[in-house]
Amino acid sequence: MLENITTSQLKNMSFAELKALCEEIRQKIITTVMSNGGHLASNLGIVELTVALHYVFDFPRDKVVFDVGHQCYPHKLLSGRYENFQTLRKRGGISGFPKREESEYDSYNTGHAGTSVSAALGIAKARDVKGEKFDVIAVIGDGSFNNGLIYEAFNSLRPLNTNILVILNDNGMSISPTVGSMHEYLEKLSRDDVHKAKVQKHSNIFERFGFSYDGVYDGNDLKEMIEKLQEIKKKLETQSVILHVLTKKGKGYAFCEENPEQTHGIPAAGSIVKEEYSHVLGKTLCRLAESDKRIVAVTAAMTPSLGLGEFFEKFPNRSIDVGICEEHATILCSALATQGLKPYYAVYSTFLQRSFDEILIDICSQNLPVTLCVDRAGISGSDGETHQGVFDLSFLNLIPNLTIAVPKDINEFERMIEWSSSFNSPLAIRYPREGKAVYSGDGKKIERGRWEILKDNKGDIAILACGERMIDLAFSIREEVRTSGIDCTIVNARFVKPLDINLLDNLSQNLIITLEDNALLGGFGSAISEYYSCKQKRVRSFGLKDDFIPHGGVRQLMDEFGLSKQDIVKFIIENAH
Amino acid sequence: MLENITTSQLKNMSFAELKALCEEIRQKIITTVMSNGGHLASNLGIVELTVALHYVFDFPRDKVVFDVGHQCYPHKLLSGRYENFQTLRKRGGISGFPKREESEYDSYNTGHAGTSVSAALGIAKARDVKGEKFDVIAVIGDGSFNNGLIYEAFNSLRPLNTNILVILNDNGMSISPTVGSMHEYLEKLSRDDVHKAKVQKHSNIFERFGFSYDGVYDGNDLKEMIEKLQEIKKKLETQSVILHVLTKKGKGYAFCEENPEQTHGIPAAGSIVKEEYSHVLGKTLCRLAESDKRIVAVTAAMTPSLGLGEFFEKFPNRSIDVGICEEHATILCSALATQGLKPYYAVYSTFLQRSFDEILIDICSQNLPVTLCVDRAGISGSDGETHQGVFDLSFLNLIPNLTIAVPKDINEFERMIEWSSSFNSPLAIRYPREGKAVYSGDGKKIERGRWEILKDNKGDIAILACGERMIDLAFSIREEVRTSGIDCTIVNARFVKPLDINLLDNLSQNLIITLEDNALLGGFGSAISEYYSCKQKRVRSFGLKDDFIPHGGVRQLMDEFGLSKQDIVKFIIENAH
Repeated sequence: MLENITTSQLKNMSFAELKALCEEIRQKIITTVMSNGGHLASNLGIVELTVALHYVFDFPRDKVVFDVGHQCYPHKLLSGRYENFQTLRKRGGISGFPKREESEYDSYNTGHAGTSVSAALGIAKARDVKGEKFDVIAVIGDGSFNNGLIYEAFNSLRPLNTNILVILNDNGMSISPTVGSMHEYLEKLSRDDVHKAKVQKHSNIFERFGFSYDGVYDGNDLKEMIEKLQEIKKKLETQSVILHVLTKKGKGYAFCEENPEQTHGIPAAGSIVKEEYSHVLGKTLCRLAESDKRIVAVTAAMTPSLGLGEFFEKFPNRSIDVGICEEHATILCSALATQGLKPYYAVYSTFLQRSFDEILIDICSQNLPVTLCVDRAGISGSDGETHQGVFDLSFLNLIPNLTIAVPKDINEFERMIEWSSSFNSPLAIRYPREGKAVYSGDGKKIERGRWEILKDNKGDIAILACGERMIDLAFSIREEVRTSGIDCTIVNARFVKPLDINLLDNLSQNLIITLEDNALLGGFGSAISEYYSCKQKRVRSFGLKDDFIPHGGVRQLMDEFGLSKQDIVKFIIENAH
Repeated sequence: MLENITTSQLKNMSFAELKALCEEIRQKIITTVMSNGGHLASNLGIVELTVALHYVFDFPRDKVVFDVGHQCYPHKLLSGRYENFQTLRKRGGISGFPKREESEYDSYNTGHAGTSVSAALGIAKARDVKGEKFDVIAVIGDGSFNNGLIYEAFNSLRPLNTNILVILNDNGMSISPTVGSMHEYLEKLSRDDVHKAKVQKHSNIFERFGFSYDGVYDGNDLKEMIEKLQEIKKKLETQSVILHVLTKKGKGYAFCEENPEQTHGIPAAGSIVKEEYSHVLGKTLCRLAESDKRIVAVTAAMTPSLGLGEFFEKFPNRSIDVGICEEHATILCSALATQGLKPYYAVYSTFLQRSFDEILIDICSQNLPVTLCVDRAGISGSDGETHQGVFDLSFLNLIPNLTIAVPKDINEFERMIEWSSSFNSPLAIRYPREGKAVYSGDGKKIERGRWEILKDNKGDIAILACGERMIDLAFSIREEVRTSGIDCTIVNARFVKPLDINLLDNLSQNLIITLEDNALLGGFGSAISEYYSCKQKRVRSFGLKDDFIPHGGVRQLMDEFGLSKQDIVKFIIENAH
């Protein structure tokens, strides 16, 4: 039924057919995600709600914005993307997130939390300005509901004087269980409902902001969802509504229902992650924190993925999960540091972007010893544009007082964390997900701004490489150019800021190659070019070109977006003297 | 009395003496601000509350965090900074904002809105972890209360399991009158109070988040404030409290009370601003919007300072002020653009930092035609570290799909805005406050990425300059080096992104000087160095060094932080062939 389904077919289905459609969607999602990887539990939870939305509203004339986008697969399957769905998260295939460039049914691209209500308000306001008529819906989970953007959007509902529907898809989870008072409040609303007649309206927080609140309903009850949405659709002409529904994360697949945190995101079949930097972070911080009582660990709703599960169990009093509130987390760290504590804020590179102003103003302009543990740095792969960690070197490098470290492998990462505990200024350490321990180095202690030479050679070419992937690439390039009789010096540029001026001044080579899995603009290579700009060196930087990097395999994307080994080898062979 | 007042002296004063002290503080603030410039109305409004805080609490053992910091002058006068207060906002003198490096009485540096509650929570949490005992207070205006950070902080009060006092200093104003539902709600609480006994507790939003709410009181009533704070101080051992007080912005100075918006910030005596870029923005947008119905203007609580007062009056339906919510404003613009509208988001450079992630993800990864009007770019002067607009070229340049324009004078700015209305991609135009119209240019139309040569010369030196101040500097440098027989080509590098590759490739000069009033790291000069890194040019970039720039005069700070005319002249004379 699902194959090539059209909106009008769906609208003419019987209830039994719609129920069957839900099961078909569920099966398609399970088989595809089990093979390709992707977001599973969240998508399974929202099947009935999505079918009801498509039954009641008229997409793409009406617009729906999915917050974060971890729940857009059923919508994609119902809007012309069934046939290509097996290409999910593969280069050139269907994206795991809403994408306007993919379908007119996707009204707004999402990926980072909390943007959906603002976006829905903007779309609705534009509709009003243009005198058009359609409905605008934001679908948002209770995890995103912790984000300050929601409050900013709610607060401007009345001044904007427009009407939207916000569907609060409450499953009690971010990726981790949702924390905070708003979550407790939502639970209270849900409990109240059990004891009161469903028709009773709660006079609640949301009504203060100008919404009509309607809840709590079973979001996995297709019939209830259809009837409720039909009723609300009429209301939207005159008011904004919050529909509060409870859904079961992982619904319909027992293993997911029982393990919603573990099945939020699923790796592609056959992918094996060996060692993770995050495990080293957690393990090392646990060890240091035994004796160093100043150490505090802070996360924004992603404790296990960041390797901090054990720390949170062992040191609950020094563990803070603020929910999806990256900015608040950053300021908390800064304030903890004013009192002599030593906070480690672990966060994915892409989400650190939210804290740019707070890193700059709160941490760095006060020169406070907060350590940013920047995980999933570099190309992160199949999540695509909104999840690549490819800007951090650039947006961090411009910030005064900040030291930026990039370990060459997980052993060096461990030594850097140890070193950081006595480092008394703002520090960012960036690393990818996977790691290994292979590079022996010069055996000297970690020292701020000091690089190490891994392979020394008197020839004319030096490769300065940042981080494990680039060191790997440098060794592999060296191996290959040696067959053409060319040798390269390899430098582990383990601090991007400050640069190792002493080493740079003493490099005998005249052709300098820089390697970074970060945007070239404003990154490491750019700093090297600038340093040598008045000196007699040629600098050729390889890194990611000035573009948004879509979903695909890490190696494939590196090849395509500026870090192709063959291109670099070719350049070296052509330019070696 | 105020001169050299100590905490213990203040605590031993009679009520009459404290009243007199308030008047003395007020007079000192008025005379100092009238001479040096600074924040007037907000500081006058908080005198009694500050005296009461110092009377009841024990600073610096207890900690107070002032949100934004526009209300910290009375606190500074009571904490050892009376004697130097006449140096307010001058280079090396007292900062207009809280500064930990200035006094142990300043617990946390602020400048951008909404950080105080997070900071207070962090300080209180650190206190608990360390087993210490003191009170932590956040003082925040109703304007900042619109910011999403407040919600994030409130939401984590219970999980953090710590106690703080939040004093909501409600004067109904941001810089502009406060907007939004939270403001309406605060007004409702204030109205309720008139009709009910003051002892009655409101069961309200704040209690949902775990605060005990106490209000509404007259924040300018010294006696009431002292008694209330004494009562609350005891409560803080077992709970967190919000104290809601109403204050009169500009209190005690009739002109300020009547013109709180105009007297929020006062220029230094004798300073004359001739023409402002913001006026040109407003005037031009008004003209274009008459016929172009797609144009929408968006601001975050600073409509008049951004020149948009007239636009908001003429086109209320296409004018949006969201309050101090820079991120929400950015997403709204992006969503408006998805529907074919043409949003102009006007914002100070420093506050744009808050939107970094949304510019990147929402606007630029969707490649939407939003125009960012980046006002107060470059060194902004006497507000200091948190208000300098010196990072935007760097943090914008790294973002794919974004075009960055920097007009050479206000005439060119006007032409750029006209040009922007038919430009169909993300665009940032950066400009300082003051402008003039003096440079004739090559008379050709504005074209994306095309620079113009203002002075052509066959010699060996080319100066590439960005924006009016740098063009001025280039002309002035050229004038001076001509007396040594050296001539320079001057290029108006009016697009920082994309660079004018064609012009760069055809420059005959071998020594390239770049000028930008932005951080050197990742900025314009860095892009030029990178471009020429494998070519036979020497590039010497002048811009702001890698440091936070304190308060002081614009020219003075330029001289000191990397844009000294004499240093550049010296470099050119020494390096000219």
